[in-house]
Amino acid sequence: MSAKSDLPNAVVAQSGGPSAVINQSMVGVVERLRESGTVGRILGARHAVRGIINNDFIELQEVAQDKLDRIAQTPSSALGTSRDKPDRNYCEKIFKVFEQNNVRSFYYIGGNDSSDTCRIINELAREAGYDLGAYHVPKTIDNDLAENDHTPGFGSAAKFVAQAFMGDNLDNAALPGIKINIVMGRHAGFLTAASMLGRRSEADGPHLIYVPEVAFDVEQFLANVDRITGKRGRCLIAVSEGVHDADGTPIAVKLAEQSGGEVERDAHGNVQLSGSGVLGDFLSKLIREKLGAKRVRADTFGYLQRSFVGCTSASDAQEARDVGREAVKMALEGHRDGSVAIVRKSDNPYTVTYKRVELSDVAAKTRTLDTKYVVDGCDIDSRLRTYLAPLAGELPVIETF
Amino acid sequence: MSAKSDLPNAVVAQSGGPSAVINQSMVGVVERLRESGTVGRILGARHAVRGIINNDFIELQEVAQDKLDRIAQTPSSALGTSRDKPDRNYCEKIFKVFEQNNVRSFYYIGGNDSSDTCRIINELAREAGYDLGAYHVPKTIDNDLAENDHTPGFGSAAKFVAQAFMGDNLDNAALPGIKINIVMGRHAGFLTAASMLGRRSEADGPHLIYVPEVAFDVEQFLANVDRITGKRGRCLIAVSEGVHDADGTPIAVKLAEQSGGEVERDAHGNVQLSGSGVLGDFLSKLIREKLGAKRVRADTFGYLQRSFVGCTSASDAQEARDVGREAVKMALEGHRDGSVAIVRKSDNPYTVTYKRVELSDVAAKTRTLDTKYVVDGCDIDSRLRTYLAPLAGELPVIETF
Repeated sequence: MSAKSDLPNAVVAQSGGPSAVINQSMVGVVERLRESGTVGRILGARHAVRGIINNDFIELQEVAQDKLDRIAQTPSSALGTSRDKPDRNYCEKIFKVFEQNNVRSFYYIGGNDSSDTCRIINELAREAGYDLGAYHVPKTIDNDLAENDHTPGFGSAAKFVAQAFMGDNLDNAALPGIKINIVMGRHAGFLTAASMLGRRSEADGPHLIYVPEVAFDVEQFLANVDRITGKRGRCLIAVSEGVHDADGTPIAVKLAEQSGGEVERDAHGNVQLSGSGVLGDFLSKLIREKLGAKRVRADTFGYLQRSFVGCTSASDAQEARDVGREAVKMALEGHRDGSVAIVRKSDNPYTVTYKRVELSDVAAKTRTLDTKYVVDGCDIDSRLRTYLAPLAGELPVIETF
Repeated sequence: MSAKSDLPNAVVAQSGGPSAVINQSMVGVVERLRESGTVGRILGARHAVRGIINNDFIELQEVAQDKLDRIAQTPSSALGTSRDKPDRNYCEKIFKVFEQNNVRSFYYIGGNDSSDTCRIINELAREAGYDLGAYHVPKTIDNDLAENDHTPGFGSAAKFVAQAFMGDNLDNAALPGIKINIVMGRHAGFLTAASMLGRRSEADGPHLIYVPEVAFDVEQFLANVDRITGKRGRCLIAVSEGVHDADGTPIAVKLAEQSGGEVERDAHGNVQLSGSGVLGDFLSKLIREKLGAKRVRADTFGYLQRSFVGCTSASDAQEARDVGREAVKMALEGHRDGSVAIVRKSDNPYTVTYKRVELSDVAAKTRTLDTKYVVDGCDIDSRLRTYLAPLAGELPVIETF
């Protein structure tokens, strides 16, 4: 497994928000590259593209397989990650480092932004007549990548959200009140929809589910909370952090502005929605004031959804490993670019396969939840369970009187 | 197992905040009572004392053992709970229902408030010359009951907090910044201290831990965050929701008052600290403004800590079952009152035993973390690991480069 100086080198990097299984994909790339015997050094870029331009690499070709296997089972991005979105100038710097290090294949694990980075670097290589393969390996807990049935990282986050709601539904039934839980998801409501996976009957919460695919109407929201509370003496609500009004303004942003607070934005211009309890706290204050309700609570699940240790979906872990291996296979088959997409073959038994898709078909695109699954703007149709359940995998058995 | 009309009846109830293992204790009481053959009906009070005065009971003597076993493994309080703190008048109503139903033993699972309720009811029974046994079964994720080495419910909550911090430390290392996590614990810092259980070296977070046993100084806090961030390029912070200033005013209350917001209180006069992101959001705003830090996030773990499905400590589950059984044993031995306390016999191998303690020694008392374990007001000594680790039980193995 030692680096052979006559062989070209490869770079692997992890981008964007961590997930519980993104290390599976990194290890999938590394082990398949090693099996192939086609590369010399396998360079793991520390903190994504930033590590590349700073020549900050971990040598991965010599790391023992048992250590890699343990890293694969560890959440978050072991190589480090970054939110940098490289423009053409940044990509030129990356390309220069690739040339200097005789890097001939680049595996970038991330969401649609990282797919776009692959696309730009690939263009630069072609323009320079430099033989480079740039491959995108899908990852995002938001499940919003185009061309994919679903995305590695989502299943484990969905399992966390489902188990959190199962427990909180029991908590809310034991000590009745109105409870709001804010779930990650800027544009896509898949993760918020997964809150319904633990429901065993109509009596179980979440009783209301709000996703960003439909406009959030404050008056309608209050009317629904009032209706459910009147009927059941309690109300458990799942709200996506990305909910917005009819004009498209995120409710969280609207509230932050109303309260005079600043709204943080990342390098991509995305408003910071996570890492703050402001949306939940505003909604619970609203319910208290407008409905006169007494016991109103809000929790924001936050980063636990993507990095909690000990709550991984088995199918998600396997698929995350596979997409890493598939990206290398794509390279071995002679493709000089591409993204790996997951195709569902069957719901029952649940089986998937993988296909190569064009980088441009994934880059900077966003897939959202089909609104046919949104019921009256405030719930998710149980038919979505067929799609979601195999991704989250088995949930613990619970029992009540 | 059918109710025999000539035998006296028993009531079991669950009080206060749910925990992941409180149903184990309830099932422990029920199964031991059934084994004893000494009682007729076993009445599970719906929503604690409120269910008693409303004659709202579940008949538990006939429930199949396999169903009970599944309920035992289910988080939250299957009988329902309440925050009512009965005064003498309320206790008289309870006592009347006991007389009407020929209830001769009462098992109350909860924190120190429920121990006090047992104490008052017991007094009323003695005054009336009515033969009643009132037994307290310990439960609280805060781990703050007097006379106990630790309390059922704490270990599973500690496991959740440890695993959450393990993951969030990896997340924070991958995408560096300043991250605050607010942990439950009004007066006792045990649960917040458990955030250190996943640390493998000095580099791992949480880098700062704030418990309510020592006064929280805002300037010192900022200086510490600045120091750690300068040294490590990141800072992960565990803050107990109950942190307070030198005057004893909870920081959360101080901030709520400063921002003109109301502070909710429960029937016990306790300020509502959970179910809001206000403390974390204030601290992160403070860091941003005073230190000019850019990437600052705060998560409030909230109710997940006590009810998440699928994160139970094995020793905690076993002990919770045992204390329920021990309470019945106490009754069978002829005691007419008492609370079960956990005694640690050995750290390695970890073993415990149980003893009877007086209700008045547990009632309305609070145990806190010995401040000898608090380092410089902002960290927890690793020696506390000996105490904490067996309670949380085995944590998942993680690996990093």
